[in-house]
Amino acid sequence: MSGSSPFGVHRVLEPVGESLPQAARVLDPRPEIWPDEVRIDIETLNLDAASYRQLSDKHTGDGDAIRAEVLDIVATRGKMQNPVTGSGGMLIGTVAEVGPQSTLGLEVGDRVATLVSLSLTPLAITDGLERWDGAGERVPARGHAILFGRSIAAKLPDDLTPELALMVMDVCGAPALVARTLRTYAGESPSVVVLGGAGKSGSLSLAAAAEAGATRRVAVVRDAAEAALLEGTGLATHVVIADARNPLGLAEALVPAGGPADLTVVCVDVTGCEQPAILATAEGGTVIFFSMATNFAAAALGAEGLAADVTMLVGNGYVPGHAAYALELLRGNAEVRRLFETRLHE
Amino acid sequence: MSGSSPFGVHRVLEPVGESLPQAARVLDPRPEIWPDEVRIDIETLNLDAASYRQLSDKHTGDGDAIRAEVLDIVATRGKMQNPVTGSGGMLIGTVAEVGPQSTLGLEVGDRVATLVSLSLTPLAITDGLERWDGAGERVPARGHAILFGRSIAAKLPDDLTPELALMVMDVCGAPALVARTLRTYAGESPSVVVLGGAGKSGSLSLAAAAEAGATRRVAVVRDAAEAALLEGTGLATHVVIADARNPLGLAEALVPAGGPADLTVVCVDVTGCEQPAILATAEGGTVIFFSMATNFAAAALGAEGLAADVTMLVGNGYVPGHAAYALELLRGNAEVRRLFETRLHE
Repeated sequence: MSGSSPFGVHRVLEPVGESLPQAARVLDPRPEIWPDEVRIDIETLNLDAASYRQLSDKHTGDGDAIRAEVLDIVATRGKMQNPVTGSGGMLIGTVAEVGPQSTLGLEVGDRVATLVSLSLTPLAITDGLERWDGAGERVPARGHAILFGRSIAAKLPDDLTPELALMVMDVCGAPALVARTLRTYAGESPSVVVLGGAGKSGSLSLAAAAEAGATRRVAVVRDAAEAALLEGTGLATHVVIADARNPLGLAEALVPAGGPADLTVVCVDVTGCEQPAILATAEGGTVIFFSMATNFAAAALGAEGLAADVTMLVGNGYVPGHAAYALELLRGNAEVRRLFETRLHE
Repeated sequence: MSGSSPFGVHRVLEPVGESLPQAARVLDPRPEIWPDEVRIDIETLNLDAASYRQLSDKHTGDGDAIRAEVLDIVATRGKMQNPVTGSGGMLIGTVAEVGPQSTLGLEVGDRVATLVSLSLTPLAITDGLERWDGAGERVPARGHAILFGRSIAAKLPDDLTPELALMVMDVCGAPALVARTLRTYAGESPSVVVLGGAGKSGSLSLAAAAEAGATRRVAVVRDAAEAALLEGTGLATHVVIADARNPLGLAEALVPAGGPADLTVVCVDVTGCEQPAILATAEGGTVIFFSMATNFAAAALGAEGLAADVTMLVGNGYVPGHAAYALELLRGNAEVRRLFETRLHE
């Protein structure tokens, strides 16, 4: 075996030498590990919602056909990457072997969730998915997966159900980046506006903001039902019902809540929130875009058109320690935990 | 007259009360100004390249037809916003009247360039564009334009031709944001990689990096011709020829130039540079995306897939004082000036 790449380039079979694993057509899922890798025995695959929807639509909900296609994708590509949506998902499993040069901090027997996408994770399935009826994103499976030298996996905590822990880990980048950004305002009682404050990433962002010392925390929600979720929780100091796509309407709705904030966090997955978010931000402040519906040019040109001196961050889903931090926020805040548990049973 | 909005909402005629001027169909270009506005007598319109190309293609280069359509757009919409491309351009003119509450720092008689897009600037043309033959983006014109309370205009310097000054101002956001970012590393001799280092925004970014104390400055260019432009200029300490879309190739090419940098600046207008830029950046470093070809999701998911702890900035074209700063860089650096003057005569 030749040397391994921390990004898994050594497992790219097609096209060789050009691609990172996510862009590759075929990965090598052999169970033997390179010295910096980790092998995981799979317990459950959680398919990405967009991927499962595409498969279900294509096969008009026929579970056997969906299962057959998932098996075919994994056998053909060496990873579970939907060829239409390009997306993957995540998995739960148990650490089976840790290479001597691995720096992920895992030990054999740890029960973990992988936080890098299945779309770049070498994967082999050995049970024909016999325990899965093809109905739903949660796929019980036997087989193994490989983590590269530079990867992300989090130990599943003992005190939370795997479903609850996964739901928190899925959005854990947001609160970590919010906390990091607010720490640059240490001692200045910064203010925060969260567009989509009642959602998963939004409510954790509000909890992170409170923990980081933001004394004015404004949650923008779309209707009274969402507002009711936050009432009395203490997560937000102000709850505002407004359309996050309407720049003038949003700016006006924020006036009674104290106006523009030092930090605006965009957690709503709809298009057209760029200029509204910029207008919701004070001069010299920061916008973090966590929505995948964000349009890069609309943000860049939108700020220029408003002569707005704001720092705009692409919401990187990875911040060191993000999963542990988000789980701590959930444990330390009964209201956040209740919000998440309510969503689990929706 | 009722109160004015610093963003020009009071001049939106259609749709009233919902849109900012850029998104509006029709603006009110009346010459009477609100107390925070400025009126400019137009000298030249510089149509956006994409807009002119669309008009020229549509009318197969017929100058009379192109001119007629520009006149029709301005008469109908109260601004020069191409209805197909959505883009505008900028203008040169002379300040005719300054409202008592204007904070733009302009005086009657100042010769200025507007740095906000024509797509949001109230505009009226009074000479039928009789001095323009419809061939080319530069449109001599008589008439007036309005700047809102919050807008951007820069005085044209006496010591540079308007063409040279405009070319610098067109990309002035990049060096200003590079300098601001590097100042957070004060005293630490930060390193910089500029993808597209021989271009306009790239070369000014390198000059800004040198001024801000970056001791290792790597210019990535696509071929030997571009490398030759930088040879011997002192702008870059290393010039690397590589394809900025190839993550592994770029990372490998950077090794002899010192490897990943504290700051990576993306100035190449091609798609697929997100993961290469992330890999070119050291852990804890920053990427600034100035390319309008940047894909938001590719950046966000790309960093997560690489477990890369990097701060990613949307390149805001506006930083206070950006035009004056870029012109100072040009004046203070004969090599940058020569690069720009070479481009003027291309």
